[in-house]
Amino acid sequence: MISKEIHLKSRPTGLPAAANFTMVEREIGEPGAGEILIQNHYMSVDPYMRGRMAMAWPLDEVMIGGALGKVVTSNNPGFQVGDYVTHGLGWREYAISNGEGVNQIDPELAPLSAYLGVMGMPGLTAYGGLLVTGEYKPGETVFVSAASGAVGSIVGQIAKIHGSTVIGSAGSDDKVEMLKASLGFDHAFNYKTADPLTELRKAAPEGIDIYFENVGGPQLEAALTHMRLYGRIPICGMISTYNDGATATPGPRNLTETIYKHITLKGFVVSAFVDQQAQFLTDMSRWIKSGEVKYNETIFDGIDNAVTAFEGLFQGANNGKMLVKLVSE
Amino acid sequence: MISKEIHLKSRPTGLPAAANFTMVEREIGEPGAGEILIQNHYMSVDPYMRGRMAMAWPLDEVMIGGALGKVVTSNNPGFQVGDYVTHGLGWREYAISNGEGVNQIDPELAPLSAYLGVMGMPGLTAYGGLLVTGEYKPGETVFVSAASGAVGSIVGQIAKIHGSTVIGSAGSDDKVEMLKASLGFDHAFNYKTADPLTELRKAAPEGIDIYFENVGGPQLEAALTHMRLYGRIPICGMISTYNDGATATPGPRNLTETIYKHITLKGFVVSAFVDQQAQFLTDMSRWIKSGEVKYNETIFDGIDNAVTAFEGLFQGANNGKMLVKLVSE
Repeated sequence: MISKEIHLKSRPTGLPAAANFTMVEREIGEPGAGEILIQNHYMSVDPYMRGRMAMAWPLDEVMIGGALGKVVTSNNPGFQVGDYVTHGLGWREYAISNGEGVNQIDPELAPLSAYLGVMGMPGLTAYGGLLVTGEYKPGETVFVSAASGAVGSIVGQIAKIHGSTVIGSAGSDDKVEMLKASLGFDHAFNYKTADPLTELRKAAPEGIDIYFENVGGPQLEAALTHMRLYGRIPICGMISTYNDGATATPGPRNLTETIYKHITLKGFVVSAFVDQQAQFLTDMSRWIKSGEVKYNETIFDGIDNAVTAFEGLFQGANNGKMLVKLVSE
Repeated sequence: MISKEIHLKSRPTGLPAAANFTMVEREIGEPGAGEILIQNHYMSVDPYMRGRMAMAWPLDEVMIGGALGKVVTSNNPGFQVGDYVTHGLGWREYAISNGEGVNQIDPELAPLSAYLGVMGMPGLTAYGGLLVTGEYKPGETVFVSAASGAVGSIVGQIAKIHGSTVIGSAGSDDKVEMLKASLGFDHAFNYKTADPLTELRKAAPEGIDIYFENVGGPQLEAALTHMRLYGRIPICGMISTYNDGATATPGPRNLTETIYKHITLKGFVVSAFVDQQAQFLTDMSRWIKSGEVKYNETIFDGIDNAVTAFEGLFQGANNGKMLVKLVSE
């Protein structure tokens, strides 16, 4: 059986480009003792992968990343043929695993693809980043950047469920309109055409309590300036700086705002929230079913389009979670 | 009776200069009902005052700041003539107060001048900033900038008492030598001539757990790069940026380091540590008497030299706490 997979050929120095990757066709053997064979239905492409490509991942090997698939052969008593699972062996059509890091999911709780988005890593990132790292208290005023993205859109909706005033920024007028009309944001602006500080002052004259940081740059500066006493800035990502190459974007010029306002900036990754995982799945499934949380997906079809999907993350091509669908269901 | 006092005449835009201030002689009357008259023995000049001059303090009025004096007349049953007190009515020779914000000190615990430094606001800033905001754990590796200053020198010594490897930076070779020879720092470097990242790597190959931030700029960037997982950066000050005027110094280009390393940056001011005040005085008095904490003072003589002393803060003229002595004892 042939499985297509994508290898990292060279390290991106600016925006990732097709030339950084190679498609390889590989013969997949039978899984060994204790192993399972998974057919991937969806794979995830995420901004954080840009950092791994630049530094950590080996060249000329298949890349990794979140994926959702179905067990098609099992030599492992922990898995049945037909189980749906999430795992970290993405960027390929078929994967063999000994079961470590492979988790069964419940297709009754939410649609399959949601497990790579709102019910998966981006959802838990939003949930934990806001509630744990951000020490969110119901009713606080929340600003989130990249608010139409997989994480940002969930951050804003969780805060709305708890009675907050929520402000979001995005990179197009369509996305801004979607945030207000569809996701219930109180205010949203296009960061490419509006001044973030002016928008924050207009939307929240009393200041903001939490800035959920996804982008860096001028929005971080504006958030620091307009932040209230004891404000928190959970740092989830800084996508505006990922493709800087040698000339890194300067950081905010006003970090001194942190001093008199007792502001906390705190970086985190989703692995910090293993203890919240079960409660997260319960809460998020309920919110999805009640319609309190809506989510968008941008789905590219076939592994041949995976690199294009990944590149699109840095060009604003996605509306919500960016996924690649690997089989027709 | 005549009291000299110093007024803010204009707001400094770059380095504060003599032209920003006026000396005024004022007739001091008798204290009224419930009031006390204090003769100031020492007044404090501190970097934070630069920020207040630029923004908050009214023009053509006497400035404020930490001072230590003796009660010479009392119409308030809470105070006896002869009591030594600390209070916020500095930049003047005599002060009348209703007693609010005036605190008796115990001259047995430490020398009088120490109450404006190691036993006072800078000491509590170091103590609370390291132990509370920095969540210091004994044995962690600590880097502190402006390490020969009133706050930094105490931060380093508290960490040494608890078994840490301590690295300090200062602005002259003499100060660097003093940190190592007199205060027991494990490593120190001159930030004007050495590369901070190279120094940190040499002094702490495994990385640092806490960077006690007093200066901003390249040292913050180096600390972020060389910080370990779950590192903390209590932000006490950023003296390198205070006199920027319109063209503010860019912040660190590598704030993304916070994400994968789960780093926390947290601003604070000393008022956060009221609950620690009593324990602080007990601990610090013991450490001073045992010789575990040493402190330096740079003392200018007479209120006529107060502005010169303040300017000197930004020129590296002080070694430890900068004070102005207002009477001969």
